[in-house]
Amino acid sequence: MQPLLHEACESLSIILGEWRGSGRGHYPTIDDFEYTEEVIFGHSGKPFLAYGQKTKNAVNGDPLHSEQGFLRATGETALELVVAQPSGIVEIHQGSFASNESACVINLESIYVETSPTAKSVERVHRLLRIEGDTLTYDLSMAAMGQPLQHHLAATLERQ
Amino acid sequence: MQPLLHEACESLSIILGEWRGSGRGHYPTIDDFEYTEEVIFGHSGKPFLAYGQKTKNAVNGDPLHSEQGFLRATGETALELVVAQPSGIVEIHQGSFASNESACVINLESIYVETSPTAKSVERVHRLLRIEGDTLTYDLSMAAMGQPLQHHLAATLERQ
Repeated sequence: MQPLLHEACESLSIILGEWRGSGRGHYPTIDDFEYTEEVIFGHSGKPFLAYGQKTKNAVNGDPLHSEQGFLRATGETALELVVAQPSGIVEIHQGSFASNESACVINLESIYVETSPTAKSVERVHRLLRIEGDTLTYDLSMAAMGQPLQHHLAATLERQ
Repeated sequence: MQPLLHEACESLSIILGEWRGSGRGHYPTIDDFEYTEEVIFGHSGKPFLAYGQKTKNAVNGDPLHSEQGFLRATGETALELVVAQPSGIVEIHQGSFASNESACVINLESIYVETSPTAKSVERVHRLLRIEGDTLTYDLSMAAMGQPLQHHLAATLERQ
């Protein structure tokens, strides 16, 4: 039985569900790339949403990135995001959101980024998500590998 | 189509699958508690395993803890674990494993634990997992809330 959504997450209910689409990535240290993506936001009745995503190479379908984490509703419009990535990275973000019945904007800035001993270095991440009706778009900027913070990923997904 | 297991994960194949069971927790700052648990280890053909777990209160079924992360095979017997928890905690562990066809021992020590601004403090975590045939047992020790590193959780799960 699906539990009731926690009242702290009610203003985030527009995010819940499964999203699919595609995106493009670029960064000075790598070749440009295109990907397909699945994102899922779920809940267990507690004051956070579970978040998971997977991307695949748009050309050959090989798995690329994935991440798993939790979006914590910590105040009326305040959020925290904790994320783990198989590339050996963990992130903690602080941010805020604004939403109504048909749209939502979430703005998250990393306050901690740590990488495992064998991972590539990442220093800072900025995540901006927008939902308008059944469309989710995001931009992700990153300071990594000694490069300054700059745009890295943009994607558009549709509610499934 | 399920991809082939990456060769770096072959010695960890005994972990793969879904596990269910129960455990007990204790810590100086809280009441003792009992829980039921589901653990899943999966893979995508890359050199890591996806890890997720959920626990519920053994008495009333309420959701308790959950965590999501990735177990990275970084050497012949070397591992890294990255984990995010909805309580606002991220952990990076380093460790090692020993395995044969019917048994596996995994020993992981946190090298980095960070908590979000609204989370309770955790300083250090030690995770010890054992698999013998279709039984998985683990012990987790933790230094948190100003307490020294000490035993916190023990559980026994069966392969589903």
